[in-house]
Amino acid sequence: MRLRNKPWAKDFMEEHPDILVLEPEQVKEGWHQLFGNNNPIHVEVGTGKGQFVIGMAKANPDVNYIGIEHFDNVMVSALEKAIEADKPSNLRLLRANGNKLVDIFEKGEIDRLYLNFSDPWPKTRHAKRRLTHESFLNLYETVLIPGGEVHFKTDNRLLFEYSLVSMSDYGMKLRYVSLDLHVEMPEDNIMTEYEEKFSAKGQPIYRLESQFDNR
Amino acid sequence: MRLRNKPWAKDFMEEHPDILVLEPEQVKEGWHQLFGNNNPIHVEVGTGKGQFVIGMAKANPDVNYIGIEHFDNVMVSALEKAIEADKPSNLRLLRANGNKLVDIFEKGEIDRLYLNFSDPWPKTRHAKRRLTHESFLNLYETVLIPGGEVHFKTDNRLLFEYSLVSMSDYGMKLRYVSLDLHVEMPEDNIMTEYEEKFSAKGQPIYRLESQFDNR
Ligand SMILES: C[S@@+](CC[C@H](N)C(=O)[O-])C[C@H]1O[C@@H](n2cnc3c(N)ncnc32)[C@H](O)[C@@H]1O
Ligand SMILES: C[S@@+](CC[C@H](N)C(=O)[O-])C[C@H]1O[C@@H](n2cnc3c(N)ncnc32)[C@H](O)[C@@H]1O
Repeated sequence: MRLRNKPWAKDFMEEHPDILVLEPEQVKEGWHQLFGNNNPIHVEVGTGKGQFVIGMAKANPDVNYIGIEHFDNVMVSALEKAIEADKPSNLRLLRANGNKLVDIFEKGEIDRLYLNFSDPWPKTRHAKRRLTHESFLNLYETVLIPGGEVHFKTDNRLLFEYSLVSMSDYGMKLRYVSLDLHVEMPEDNIMTEYEEKFSAKGQPIYRLESQFDNR
Repeated sequence: MRLRNKPWAKDFMEEHPDILVLEPEQVKEGWHQLFGNNNPIHVEVGTGKGQFVIGMAKANPDVNYIGIEHFDNVMVSALEKAIEADKPSNLRLLRANGNKLVDIFEKGEIDRLYLNFSDPWPKTRHAKRRLTHESFLNLYETVLIPGGEVHFKTDNRLLFEYSLVSMSDYGMKLRYVSLDLHVEMPEDNIMTEYEEKFSAKGQPIYRLESQFDNR
């Protein structure tokens, strides 16, 4: 993702408070109220340019979707796409860092968490930055309902191997694994930008669903 | 594996009781005595033609190895190889079915279990025959020490995906996963016959180590 400086990004983001929440900490415990219904809330951390979360919001009107992205320059692309898609009422974009999840959501406020093509941070000394590191799993467990699920897709073999072990070690249970998602492409699969790019190169896409303890 | 009938198989097997145990149930609880030491015992279920278990026995003289294979016609090939390798004293071959493990070993009598390129049984109605089905995991847990490990290699994607979920569901923890073993081939990797065949075709080899609860 090229990170050109986009000096107009801030202004543009501030013009669309109905879809982009700039200070999500202030909504904490109020997300169902903000959506105006009690439908489940599914959150994607590391949304990138938004194709997945916007596609999901359009395909599943009975679920509320929140896409979290920490780079302004990337977020504006997601915002542009959300505007083109007529700002689905069950979608919000948050300009925030995933490591702030517990400041943004109350315990058990969300129902599912998506991670798609998360940055791999291949060096061992950066393992703590991987979104499936124990410290992140701990945040997810806090904001998810008991027994909440994490759904994860990636093309990165090393990150996927690491995540299987990390989640297992944390005590999560694997509910589903595909080591070549596009061979039996599920009908309801919504591709992300990275997924389109890497699968076009013929790389296998890995996918898992894992679940926290149901207590 | 072509299963020609080999009428001489029975006689040949009976001629080598020092390496091939034809009635393993009679040794139950006596395996350390049979090996004449208290070294750990590692068991491979579905040994095939024996290259792996014989190679392991030669590479690791301080571990006792047992290869279990239920087809006479395959077992004779393993026996031939073991004879060529001068019958390592830390190796035994058992002509038995893996579903009889609890009749062959006392609770906690073995230290590790290997599965290599197990038959995939792709049809759902045959899932019970897969060596990573819950009912087999239950046998393994019984004969292994508490916290005992299962090490599993295969080229079969669907069987590997199934096994990850089945083991996780059983409460086992993943300790190691490789989704392309031969890319960073571990120095101590000993190839099986099937591994040589499938990796030569360029197929990725999957490998995992998982552990039962340590109680
Ligand atoms: C490799 S891109 C993948 C984007 C998109 N999910 C896809 O599949 O096309 C990873 C994205 O996650 C964002 N990201 C990484 N760590 C994050 C964090 N801690 N909080 C929020 N966003 C993060 C990055 O800025 C980047 O846009
Ligand atoms: C596909 S071959 C793999 C052989 C060898 N492990 C390798 O990797 O080259 C599977 C072997 O497991 C044996 N086998 C399958 N189920 C078994 C069971 N329940 N008990 C003992 N052996 C079994 C089969 O007879 C066959 O020889």
